[in-house]
Amino acid sequence: MVDMKDLVSLCKRRGIIFQSSEVYGGVGSVWDYGPVGVELKNNVKRAWWKANVYSRSDMVGLDASILMHPKTWEASGHVASFADLLVDCKKCKKRFREDKLKGKKCPECGGGLTDSRRFNLMFKTAIGSVEGQSTTIHLRPETAQGIFLNFPNVLNASRKKLPFGIAQTGKAFRNEITTGNFTFRCREFEQMEIEYFVRPEEDQKWYDYWVNERFNWYINLGIDKKNLKLRPHEKDELAHYAKSCHDIEYNFPFGWSELEGIANRTDFDLKQHALISGKELVYFDEETKKNIVPYVIEPSGGVDRAVLAFLIDSYNVEKVKSQKRTVLKLHKDLAPIKAAVFPLLRNRPEIVEMAQKIVKDLAGDRYVVYDDTASIGRLYRRQDEIGTPYCITVDVQSLDDKKVTVRDRDSMEQDRISADKLESALIEKLKEA
Amino acid sequence: MVDMKDLVSLCKRRGIIFQSSEVYGGVGSVWDYGPVGVELKNNVKRAWWKANVYSRSDMVGLDASILMHPKTWEASGHVASFADLLVDCKKCKKRFREDKLKGKKCPECGGGLTDSRRFNLMFKTAIGSVEGQSTTIHLRPETAQGIFLNFPNVLNASRKKLPFGIAQTGKAFRNEITTGNFTFRCREFEQMEIEYFVRPEEDQKWYDYWVNERFNWYINLGIDKKNLKLRPHEKDELAHYAKSCHDIEYNFPFGWSELEGIANRTDFDLKQHALISGKELVYFDEETKKNIVPYVIEPSGGVDRAVLAFLIDSYNVEKVKSQKRTVLKLHKDLAPIKAAVFPLLRNRPEIVEMAQKIVKDLAGDRYVVYDDTASIGRLYRRQDEIGTPYCITVDVQSLDDKKVTVRDRDSMEQDRISADKLESALIEKLKEA
Repeated sequence: MVDMKDLVSLCKRRGIIFQSSEVYGGVGSVWDYGPVGVELKNNVKRAWWKANVYSRSDMVGLDASILMHPKTWEASGHVASFADLLVDCKKCKKRFREDKLKGKKCPECGGGLTDSRRFNLMFKTAIGSVEGQSTTIHLRPETAQGIFLNFPNVLNASRKKLPFGIAQTGKAFRNEITTGNFTFRCREFEQMEIEYFVRPEEDQKWYDYWVNERFNWYINLGIDKKNLKLRPHEKDELAHYAKSCHDIEYNFPFGWSELEGIANRTDFDLKQHALISGKELVYFDEETKKNIVPYVIEPSGGVDRAVLAFLIDSYNVEKVKSQKRTVLKLHKDLAPIKAAVFPLLRNRPEIVEMAQKIVKDLAGDRYVVYDDTASIGRLYRRQDEIGTPYCITVDVQSLDDKKVTVRDRDSMEQDRISADKLESALIEKLKEA
Repeated sequence: MVDMKDLVSLCKRRGIIFQSSEVYGGVGSVWDYGPVGVELKNNVKRAWWKANVYSRSDMVGLDASILMHPKTWEASGHVASFADLLVDCKKCKKRFREDKLKGKKCPECGGGLTDSRRFNLMFKTAIGSVEGQSTTIHLRPETAQGIFLNFPNVLNASRKKLPFGIAQTGKAFRNEITTGNFTFRCREFEQMEIEYFVRPEEDQKWYDYWVNERFNWYINLGIDKKNLKLRPHEKDELAHYAKSCHDIEYNFPFGWSELEGIANRTDFDLKQHALISGKELVYFDEETKKNIVPYVIEPSGGVDRAVLAFLIDSYNVEKVKSQKRTVLKLHKDLAPIKAAVFPLLRNRPEIVEMAQKIVKDLAGDRYVVYDDTASIGRLYRRQDEIGTPYCITVDVQSLDDKKVTVRDRDSMEQDRISADKLESALIEKLKEA
């Protein structure tokens, strides 16, 4: 398995992930996605959207805001419960999570500790400009509540029948105490969440369905099954809103850790918002002519964690003719760059021109790049390191036979393909498993 | 031109845009995108990304974080300058922007006003959990600075030569005093920004190029040229960092207003960050063997404003057989749903089955929906209102001849097409202008 140091180094060198505000020494546990990383992250989100919205007739999308009405977090229980118990060292003033401490003394300096206090993980800010009238508002700690508040509006506009879901990707923020492990635990992160509304009596059936569905999504996108496992939550670790929860865990280099949680949130959130707002958040059942409050099954995944798992799982170091080859064997749907085009000789204008024309023909609908800034061997190595499935080389012979060499990332086998059939060949190849 | 009230009503009814946290009375100038709106917004961003990243060899993408190091905003000038001058009424305590006041008395109650004070538009929050060690940090008021700070990392990873650009879409936040006009001026909004780095002596050439390029982008996506104009900034309205700026203005129902600004930011930002951080933010010129600080041309557009302009510009009310037809004649690349499939008779299982199979075959890579919850006339009307280019109807005859009726949104003409040729026909039709 890849050493995290090697992965972090690759991510910086190849433009996948950078430390945020690095020139100023960084911001703790906040990360930026570089030119290659933004494509990978967008491809992960797009694959999720295709699987969960475009391929299903029982799901619609949503893009709710980060800033929400303050009552939201009272109703959801986040104001009261979304907190860690912290203790301070009386001597060195360092702060620790009580549940992570092994003894009753400061692990840093051995000093005495204060009693524990609750520290809420939500970021606070103030909205509005009128003195005395500005309102404290939180950055959402989960995207889910934007879905619950929009339940009546979405229901009206979409006319969906139970069971149906609302899917959303977007940023969320948590002022975490324990951070680290690269992008695994971020203070600013992106979620991909589904709230799937079902008849209360069918909750277990749909819960089982979604646990299975989401587990297979990762496998279908190339994660090795032996690096994934399902872990049911113990009763005492369940969130305040959950009847049951399974984590999909990935075998990260720093240990098995949560990639996604599938929770049965019951009717907790809809009922709470109805209670606090005085509005109806119900579904009218045509059969019984009665209003019902649906139960909710929530598959909640982290985009950054998924990206990290896909990077780790696809990372391979191979020996090729006694040379080391680092290659990301990413699923083709996730590969940031679909093809790279090289001129074998960059001082031959006809070859350069033909290569650039190929890029122009292939690019636009997908990400295809041109590179001539190194020898072919090094250009292959660069593209292997970012998981580009195909490298296309234009050589002297191409000028005569109008064929180019297409090299496969994984097998390293080379094909000669007519330049005028390249687009259709690439489209076919990108669909192959 | 569409009345804003009609548009707001359509947006709510059809799931395009909802008021944020509506069940709690809303959050001022913050909006949520519904099932149809999220598709439109994503399509706008994707069209922008395809035009500016995938179709160009001189541009790469980026996805930087919302939370950035506090020094960023000192260097950029936002801490000192990103403020409105506000006055308070001594009597009714209301607050006003000084530059919007016509007299020296309170426009609400006629009371006397205080002296003006600076009110910074950035949202503040605190990061970190250690008492006395938490840091005040801002929500970014523009995505641009994430690009400037990543200039050295992107340059290293991408090996681009001048001129080249970095493109980014993402959320930004401004605690606006004057809000309103639906989604035009939001406190939480999304930007699509390019920072295009050029040799200082070539700034004017590239400035002119980008003004033209961006103006045409809107036209290519269907905005009527007569509803767009370029407005050069007067010297006294230029931002502190800008040598020159043109606004692309759209003829909104509430008046000509900014859709996008193209600014020559010179070397202001890179130099400021170098000064404050002590790091080098330079480009090594292979020709002269010297470091240079590039000038920057910045096309900065608002995603929400673009969405609003596309909605307004495509909104048409027509008379068809003495009936009113409301139709969004959106560019096909922007249309939220590419095709809708209806069974003419929903009580005939073979027809329903055939219609659902067509959805299954067409959906996945694109958004195609099934609907049988109303009469055909009403189903057409619904899809017209959200700009679906093609409606596909399965009727009794379809069971025999395996052909279906494909209706064109704009001409309302109907074609009979073989079900097995539907996908290729749709792909072709979606490419047509």
